[in-house]
Amino acid sequence: MPHQLPTKPVLTLAVAKLIAAAAEEVAVENQWSVVIAIVDDSGSLLYFQRMDQNANSSVDVAIAKATHAVQYRRPTKFHEELLDKGNMVVLGMPGMIPLEGGIPLYVGEHVVGAIGVSGVRSPQDTIIAEAGEAALKVYLAD
Amino acid sequence: MPHQLPTKPVLTLAVAKLIAAAAEEVAVENQWSVVIAIVDDSGSLLYFQRMDQNANSSVDVAIAKATHAVQYRRPTKFHEELLDKGNMVVLGMPGMIPLEGGIPLYVGEHVVGAIGVSGVRSPQDTIIAEAGEAALKVYLAD
Amino acid sequence: MPHQLPTKPVLTLAVAKLIAAAAEEVAVENQWSVVIAIVDDSGSLLYFQRMDQNANSSVDVAIAKATHAVQYRRPTKFHEELLDKGNMVVLGMPGMIPLEGGIPLYVGEHVVGAIGVSGVRSPQDTIIAEAGEAALKVYLAD
Amino acid sequence: MPHQLPTKPVLTLAVAKLIAAAAEEVAVENQWSVVIAIVDDSGSLLYFQRMDQNANSSVDVAIAKATHAVQYRRPTKFHEELLDKGNMVVLGMPGMIPLEGGIPLYVGEHVVGAIGVSGVRSPQDTIIAEAGEAALKVYLAD
Repeated sequence: MPHQLPTKPVLTLAVAKLIAAAAEEVAVENQWSVVIAIVDDSGSLLYFQRMDQNANSSVDVAIAKATHAVQYRRPTKFHEELLDKGNMVVLGMPGMIPLEGGIPLYVGEHVVGAIGVSGVRSPQDTIIAEAGEAALKVYLAD
Repeated sequence: MPHQLPTKPVLTLAVAKLIAAAAEEVAVENQWSVVIAIVDDSGSLLYFQRMDQNANSSVDVAIAKATHAVQYRRPTKFHEELLDKGNMVVLGMPGMIPLEGGIPLYVGEHVVGAIGVSGVRSPQDTIIAEAGEAALKVYLAD
Repeated sequence: MPHQLPTKPVLTLAVAKLIAAAAEEVAVENQWSVVIAIVDDSGSLLYFQRMDQNANSSVDVAIAKATHAVQYRRPTKFHEELLDKGNMVVLGMPGMIPLEGGIPLYVGEHVVGAIGVSGVRSPQDTIIAEAGEAALKVYLAD
Repeated sequence: MPHQLPTKPVLTLAVAKLIAAAAEEVAVENQWSVVIAIVDDSGSLLYFQRMDQNANSSVDVAIAKATHAVQYRRPTKFHEELLDKGNMVVLGMPGMIPLEGGIPLYVGEHVVGAIGVSGVRSPQDTIIAEAGEAALKVYLAD
């Protein structure tokens, strides 16, 4: 029997849109204007939308949160909390933005991508991102 | 009567989605897998989606085409043709990608943003981007 | 009736010069040599002048203050004060310079640009930038 | 039955070492000193070795060839040949090095990574890279 490489799950555009739609719904319900960025497991952008009236800075911040989350495989909140406790190393790490609102998307043990949200207060950004993460879990459980 | 600043039209997320949907429709009809990037007049990303199965390079290329088109206020094809005629200056210009598939979005005399497409042959990328541009024109004429 | 995009006000060069002249006047009165940078709503430089005898670093700092102010839609002093209170996250954010002297220029709810000043002590930079901001308000009220 | 994401094969370090060993063997047989770089499907470095006595530039060139090959899903030779035919667009594309010696590693329709070699003449670099690619095919057929 021939050798085979292991496999990993792949985030599709259809599922990314489903994740973003769930996140957007929470934003709209709360009248929060945000940027929503979803990256794949390589850190490449897969889906992105900027709602009207938020600051330009939110574009880079949302993408940075998503990239951080997928590359470090941790919510950006993890490193924000380390920094809050006085661990300044966080500020010297490459590709790190120590502000909550970026969440890796796990399927089992695999990180298939991440969602990053920016535009309102960062705990609110997290609520929106978590709605996206939850939608993925529901989809996979259905 | 008080002084007033002049005004310019602003591309909204709703209209960007309408533009992207028209572009995606042409891609899907032709079974072309592409990246579609829409930037606003500042060159900031406004909407982005990557269809499945295209090369990672298409992510950067689509965004670069849209950014080029909005910053230079010309289709990327304009500079590709200059290069084809032997004008090598194009290769020394900042923020320029001399490959068709990026189109500025005009509303009257104002550039409100741009669309960039990458993933198939560049003339096909242009067909998709033009479908997006046409959708904006139809929307504004309706 | 056809669809229309919303509009936003646009900072012109003539008005930017008026803003800079008001700022420069305060600097000259106090014999302060500074760099004055004004960016538009996209963060692109619109007007810039460097008075004689200040440090080279003031060029980058003034532009960075203006860019920060327009992208985050907040005075740079806002983030300097957060940092003063111990919020280290500020140091990990993209495009942020936590030093007063950068002020966004609002017209109603719209940010049309920003002014950044560098060259003297930062509270003095702010005094100069605020003179520019005030000139815009007077102009629009006239 | 629950929804599932599609999957793709993943290059492991063990297999990357096997690929590199086959490439190195050809280099040693010919007394060629080269850099061998293997990246995964995200363009991240997976395995790297630099033999003694080659130029520092070979480090960046080998990594660039591998990255180009995986991001564009084409051998770097493809774009070198386009350039040879006078297609100057190649010089304006992001992340492109138009010099043979970079080869994507396919498993069926999936690009799982790429190998880039630099240090000797570029057709010789290609011979080495192809030996690595061939070793993957033999491994998967065994």
